[in-house]
Amino acid sequence: MEKVAVIGIGLTKFGELWESSFSQLFVEAGTKAIEDAGIDGKDIDAIFVGNMSGGRFIEQEHISSLIADYAGLTPLPSTRVEAACASGGLAIRHGIMGILSGFYDIVVVGGVEKMTDVLTERTTQILATAAEQEWEANLGMTFPGLYAMMARRHMHKYGTTREQLAMVSVKNHRNAVHNPYAQFRFEISVDKVLNSPMVADPLRLLDCSPISDGAACIILASKEKAKEFVDNPIYIIGSGQASSSISLHGREKLTVMDSTVNAAREAYKRAKIEPKQIKVAEVHDCFTIAEILAIEGLGFFKVGEGGKATEEGETEIGGKVSVNTSGGLKAKGHPVGATGVAQAVEITLQLRGEAEKRQVDADFGLSHNVGGSGGTAVVHIFSK
Amino acid sequence: MEKVAVIGIGLTKFGELWESSFSQLFVEAGTKAIEDAGIDGKDIDAIFVGNMSGGRFIEQEHISSLIADYAGLTPLPSTRVEAACASGGLAIRHGIMGILSGFYDIVVVGGVEKMTDVLTERTTQILATAAEQEWEANLGMTFPGLYAMMARRHMHKYGTTREQLAMVSVKNHRNAVHNPYAQFRFEISVDKVLNSPMVADPLRLLDCSPISDGAACIILASKEKAKEFVDNPIYIIGSGQASSSISLHGREKLTVMDSTVNAAREAYKRAKIEPKQIKVAEVHDCFTIAEILAIEGLGFFKVGEGGKATEEGETEIGGKVSVNTSGGLKAKGHPVGATGVAQAVEITLQLRGEAEKRQVDADFGLSHNVGGSGGTAVVHIFSK
Repeated sequence: MEKVAVIGIGLTKFGELWESSFSQLFVEAGTKAIEDAGIDGKDIDAIFVGNMSGGRFIEQEHISSLIADYAGLTPLPSTRVEAACASGGLAIRHGIMGILSGFYDIVVVGGVEKMTDVLTERTTQILATAAEQEWEANLGMTFPGLYAMMARRHMHKYGTTREQLAMVSVKNHRNAVHNPYAQFRFEISVDKVLNSPMVADPLRLLDCSPISDGAACIILASKEKAKEFVDNPIYIIGSGQASSSISLHGREKLTVMDSTVNAAREAYKRAKIEPKQIKVAEVHDCFTIAEILAIEGLGFFKVGEGGKATEEGETEIGGKVSVNTSGGLKAKGHPVGATGVAQAVEITLQLRGEAEKRQVDADFGLSHNVGGSGGTAVVHIFSK
Repeated sequence: MEKVAVIGIGLTKFGELWESSFSQLFVEAGTKAIEDAGIDGKDIDAIFVGNMSGGRFIEQEHISSLIADYAGLTPLPSTRVEAACASGGLAIRHGIMGILSGFYDIVVVGGVEKMTDVLTERTTQILATAAEQEWEANLGMTFPGLYAMMARRHMHKYGTTREQLAMVSVKNHRNAVHNPYAQFRFEISVDKVLNSPMVADPLRLLDCSPISDGAACIILASKEKAKEFVDNPIYIIGSGQASSSISLHGREKLTVMDSTVNAAREAYKRAKIEPKQIKVAEVHDCFTIAEILAIEGLGFFKVGEGGKATEEGETEIGGKVSVNTSGGLKAKGHPVGATGVAQAVEITLQLRGEAEKRQVDADFGLSHNVGGSGGTAVVHIFSK
């Protein structure tokens, strides 16, 4: 594919942001991204926004119009895309298509979710709408339960240990300490994970990403247009998207997330690079097991060896591939619609050399965003 | 823009389809479209689906994955787009971009909504999520109320009469008699409209489109690929999309829907044709006043003259421009996410010469889909 440039990035802090409304969050992230790019509203051709469930979290559908309105960007075309927690990644892909189709030169791609304005029990119910109602959610399955089954099977089949799962969380918390936008900027220990309250055996509280509010935004431009505005564009050189059975029972294996494998294959092919060339990656660690499945599915490690690689420090900053330098969903926070776009923000910072104490030496970076238990996966590959 | 071909179409009946699930509806429409195009699943590259509120109507988000799964089309990329009642039109636009970006050759574009599985009061609440919660819905505004204000202002400013509004409904019911997929296949009279129960003054029950279940699907292909499969492709030669203030109070005028005007301008420009060349149009008549605003905003008639044009029969089948030959939202039914795609199905039938007793002589057709009270509008222009 022809490459597309990231010319601006913006983030809000992630966390329990009771003082900010949904509209304020995306306007904050969007304004930062527009300022970062040094563009004006009149330079923008369209808006894409990833949002999982405005309809249920804040009783507001049609947020494409709301966003254009509050950002002062009407009458620009504004589109919401949704694939549960992969909504942000999907918004990026469709922003790219908007540019490569010739319809647009510069687009704003945002992701936003306001999750803490409802009670926690209700949040769990809302998140369960990303699983199949008929065969999973209505029978009482929630996401910790679904990922717990994947974890249990991975442990059984490959000898992945409970401690290795915990090490994912420990690493991501350690990285988040240096990320000013992260929800949890403190270190934890393996012991602390193993002694945290049980959520769905074998997953404990500190294996699970939190409920968060937040927004993220990037400005995409055609490679010709990018040069008019910035000296340091980062390019998206590959994009992949795949679907899978929405329910776990429809998958061939619990230990391989085939949507990740298929999306990664497309992205590597479009980018014309190999997994081993990726030195920094933001992957979808909604639960610790999810990061293990991700680093295997993306081809960084062989299937079954993700736990061992984590234990051996290969995913630490400066390891074979630095994974979730931002703190990941676990420690940076997981406002579901924003996550995929926030991943792109971190990779852009890394490739610009602006990641400060989290900085990695990399020519290529990757973002990996999952919807539900793997019904959707989106992968993007970035280069300097 | 480069033209894109419609090579297959499929519809379910619209109505209260209690015997069909959400999944069954889109599989039925999709299967018909795939058969109509004479393609196989393996020819398809991606799925786009318009759906307004699966999250609230059937407690299911992530329907992109559900649809790929139930249609047997995993691991294809599958994307839901949403802009309230304009979701279907938006799905078409993004399917076009997917093709013109070079990512895909053939895509399935569907729209689906299952609205009758919740109580009617709840449906009204859910539909109100397309309006701004903070300034409209939370204060008790519902859609009949919003459109009633537009109607009242149009009547005051231009002398549009209560009877003229009724004539929109009478015409659309007359057209629906000949549409086997329509929800209401019976004629009504102006008297009957004027004596139907008041909903929001001046709009009465028979000014309002119904609550419906249904799905629609079209298959889009690049113009090169289309020729491999069909002899009679219909082309989409123009696409326009615009946003506006989500709330009525943010608009300059109540009597001109600026999103329609802006989306139409883009579509005509891309298609390189004039409004007067359009001989058949499906427009967004969620309420009778909406059709008047549409035919003015699309440039078929001068602002303020839509009511008179309707009274004089200029929008009847065979008139200056045949509007809503399918029966429109009013009589064909309005499963919100499906509507924009169903409009494309009708225009394709017309340009193929397959509209039977509704047939119009036309070289160009147009579809016009609105989200909310006009926060989003999408326009597509079709040619033989």
